[in-house]
Amino acid sequence: MPIQPALFLFDVFGTVVDWRTSVAKRLTVIADDCGINMDCQNFADRWRGLYQPIMEGVRSGERSYELLDNLHRENLLRLLDELSIPIPDQQTIERMNNVWAELDGWPDASEGVKRLKSVGYCVSLSNGNIGLMSRLARYADLPWDAIMGAEVAKDYKPKPGVYLSAAKSFGLNPEQCVMVAAHNYDLAAARELGMQAAFIPRPTEYGPGQTTDLTADQDWEYTADSLTDLAAQFGA
Amino acid sequence: MPIQPALFLFDVFGTVVDWRTSVAKRLTVIADDCGINMDCQNFADRWRGLYQPIMEGVRSGERSYELLDNLHRENLLRLLDELSIPIPDQQTIERMNNVWAELDGWPDASEGVKRLKSVGYCVSLSNGNIGLMSRLARYADLPWDAIMGAEVAKDYKPKPGVYLSAAKSFGLNPEQCVMVAAHNYDLAAARELGMQAAFIPRPTEYGPGQTTDLTADQDWEYTADSLTDLAAQFGA
Repeated sequence: MPIQPALFLFDVFGTVVDWRTSVAKRLTVIADDCGINMDCQNFADRWRGLYQPIMEGVRSGERSYELLDNLHRENLLRLLDELSIPIPDQQTIERMNNVWAELDGWPDASEGVKRLKSVGYCVSLSNGNIGLMSRLARYADLPWDAIMGAEVAKDYKPKPGVYLSAAKSFGLNPEQCVMVAAHNYDLAAARELGMQAAFIPRPTEYGPGQTTDLTADQDWEYTADSLTDLAAQFGA
Repeated sequence: MPIQPALFLFDVFGTVVDWRTSVAKRLTVIADDCGINMDCQNFADRWRGLYQPIMEGVRSGERSYELLDNLHRENLLRLLDELSIPIPDQQTIERMNNVWAELDGWPDASEGVKRLKSVGYCVSLSNGNIGLMSRLARYADLPWDAIMGAEVAKDYKPKPGVYLSAAKSFGLNPEQCVMVAAHNYDLAAARELGMQAAFIPRPTEYGPGQTTDLTADQDWEYTADSLTDLAAQFGA
């Protein structure tokens, strides 16, 4: 019987919000407004494809910690160059980069977080910086108790410090925390530290042909179809 | 004419919540429950009196950053010893230490923050750690967009990094930020970095005989009797 949790830690991109559809949709509006000729769905996928590699430089110690907003911008400029899309003016660059704060929640997200707050504290534990995640929280109506993650630890998941800093700040043992994610690697890192794990598969996060994270890799303490389903498992 | 602000940064202890009355009130309940003989108002004042000195050790680099919850506990044990009060059991120690999360907001606090959120992002910039400030936010109904401050910067106000880390995370220039505080030293540190300042005098924070921070030391951009008055000055 798992310990009653006091703190839920949420992965956000993919787990709580649908970044793929949203980024493509927002980029389409900007491209239309600014007369930029680009395949926005392909652009979204390739932009996200540069996400793990650029964070790896921080994880490995090759470069110092940098806010995700800035890493996103660096990758954006690189991708525009790779695709031979003329670099737009600074204002448009910033507007494009801000699409990561304009992501729609999965249909169950906002209600799920609200209900889980009656069970324990609900904190986002994302690789996004606090400013980015604050803008996203307003956009997608996510009433976090606090925003922690990469910027507090000055490192990127799945490095242990990101998870442990959250438990420590709340004065809790890892066993009292539940990591909530759509990604097995994120849950595995949390379990390694003694945390509980809740797997919320999002089988279309990467589009119709998704082949990863469709099923649980381990016997996670909780598996739920949605955040509202997870809340229901706690009687909320 | 000051720049329209995008981000309000709030000092919390004293500015948003009435720590002095609340700590004494909560300690009285615990002392009664546990049969501890103590002068709770004096204890509250002396406990707070140890607050700046212990943080000074971190600011000066003499000791590494430590969560405020832990510094509070260290001072609590020291004060019990100084006052020759027998050290209670661990559960009671934790209950006593948690009074810093059970502070009543000034009457205007919750409504003021809610209204200022229509003007800009509202972020707490306290020396409290994120876990402590999350518990307090629930207790006093303070709907912060995010909790930043000491734990993000790993240092204590008025060190510049605490203020600057918040502006940077939101991708803003200091000029676009307003520091909101009842303490002139806090506003002075923010102004030194280019931020705007809003002074909210709280003439009874330290009790009826208060002699400090009754008036503005400098020509702060805004002075208001309350957070709702400040909101009104922004048309909110």
